[in-house]
Amino acid sequence: MTDGSLVQRSTQAVRDHIRGKGLRVGDALPGEGHFADLLGVSRAVMREAFGALAALRVIDVANGRRARVGAIDGAVIATSLDHAVDTAQVSIIEIWDVRRTMEARTAELAAWNRSDEEAALIVALAEAIAEAGDDRDRVVAADIALHEAIARASHNPLFLQVIRSFAPMMQRVVPAAWRTRTTADDRADVIARHRALARAIADRDPRAAREAMDRHFDRTIDDMFRLDQAR
Amino acid sequence: MTDGSLVQRSTQAVRDHIRGKGLRVGDALPGEGHFADLLGVSRAVMREAFGALAALRVIDVANGRRARVGAIDGAVIATSLDHAVDTAQVSIIEIWDVRRTMEARTAELAAWNRSDEEAALIVALAEAIAEAGDDRDRVVAADIALHEAIARASHNPLFLQVIRSFAPMMQRVVPAAWRTRTTADDRADVIARHRALARAIADRDPRAAREAMDRHFDRTIDDMFRLDQAR
Repeated sequence: MTDGSLVQRSTQAVRDHIRGKGLRVGDALPGEGHFADLLGVSRAVMREAFGALAALRVIDVANGRRARVGAIDGAVIATSLDHAVDTAQVSIIEIWDVRRTMEARTAELAAWNRSDEEAALIVALAEAIAEAGDDRDRVVAADIALHEAIARASHNPLFLQVIRSFAPMMQRVVPAAWRTRTTADDRADVIARHRALARAIADRDPRAAREAMDRHFDRTIDDMFRLDQAR
Repeated sequence: MTDGSLVQRSTQAVRDHIRGKGLRVGDALPGEGHFADLLGVSRAVMREAFGALAALRVIDVANGRRARVGAIDGAVIATSLDHAVDTAQVSIIEIWDVRRTMEARTAELAAWNRSDEEAALIVALAEAIAEAGDDRDRVVAADIALHEAIARASHNPLFLQVIRSFAPMMQRVVPAAWRTRTTADDRADVIARHRALARAIADRDPRAAREAMDRHFDRTIDDMFRLDQAR
């Protein structure tokens, strides 16, 4: 590994270039060689700096092509979350508290801001959860897509990316939570909550949307505690 | 740049190793050479994989020392946020909506969970804002420290890291917001709001804490709109 502070200075220089030139997502950047000459550092240092920026999605480096300015991507936060859970730095219950806090607000914003197309998609995804029946993969996919559609309809791109970052965790946790819902009544209840949430957003009722999201999480967090105790 | 999918597979192998062995923050990892041999990839590929993991703080590589499991760090999210603002993907007002949503909840949690030491620090930092007078650097430092102390007192480490990720943005924005508070009355008002917030947390009053944080953001977001229009 090359000198860390040199690499850090080099990543900062690329970020300053992006800011200084007012670049936007997809704009091309000069190559590693250009920055290496400019900063008087080796190609190896500059390669590491580009690698770090690509990992953080500040730049987008498709194989062998020129680096471009990257779009923010919930995958970066998702990696941090996954790592934090794997190494017992944060519990799922703690992450779900953050999720609940964010999603109650996105439900409210979605009720204010959703387009007609967004409302139709949200309602359709709530129905898709109902129609998936016992097909757990379909339930999980529709559940994740519903939460993402609501975040998108908030029209705040930061909420969207943060909520997208929870998706890998949902892939792990939602099937287990669903397993605790063993009776037909349990499942009907979860389906009804998703429908009420979608309906409130379609009806442009921010308060009902926030409350429906809160009730949904009350239930989900209960299921997770039951799951914890069943272990 | 080497083959992107090989690097990706290599970073995944390191993450699988961390999860599979149940490693914790600070635990040592095998070197790049070990993984290169194991996966049948070149040292250059493995060096890039380690670099990407270090950028994401999944591993911690102090200069020339052995890689260790990294602690989650708001700096990763902060880089994403800074980049998103620099490239006009997200506005400050949109970030402040996310901040407000998170901080109303941390104020509530802090009122429930704060230790006596944490309460004393929060009250002292609210006083430090009052005592800083016209010294803007001291005001900003105390303001950032107060929000971080509240997040820490929530006792949810994910809230703490997310709120820490806003600090670089606060360094940029808070001085400007403070400039809009030109009269003595304006400043007294902001100081009073911080004191009310600290008091509610010290009094273990979650509802008052949440409301005080909300009122604080109402005011701050108003100031930011004024600032936008003054440009």
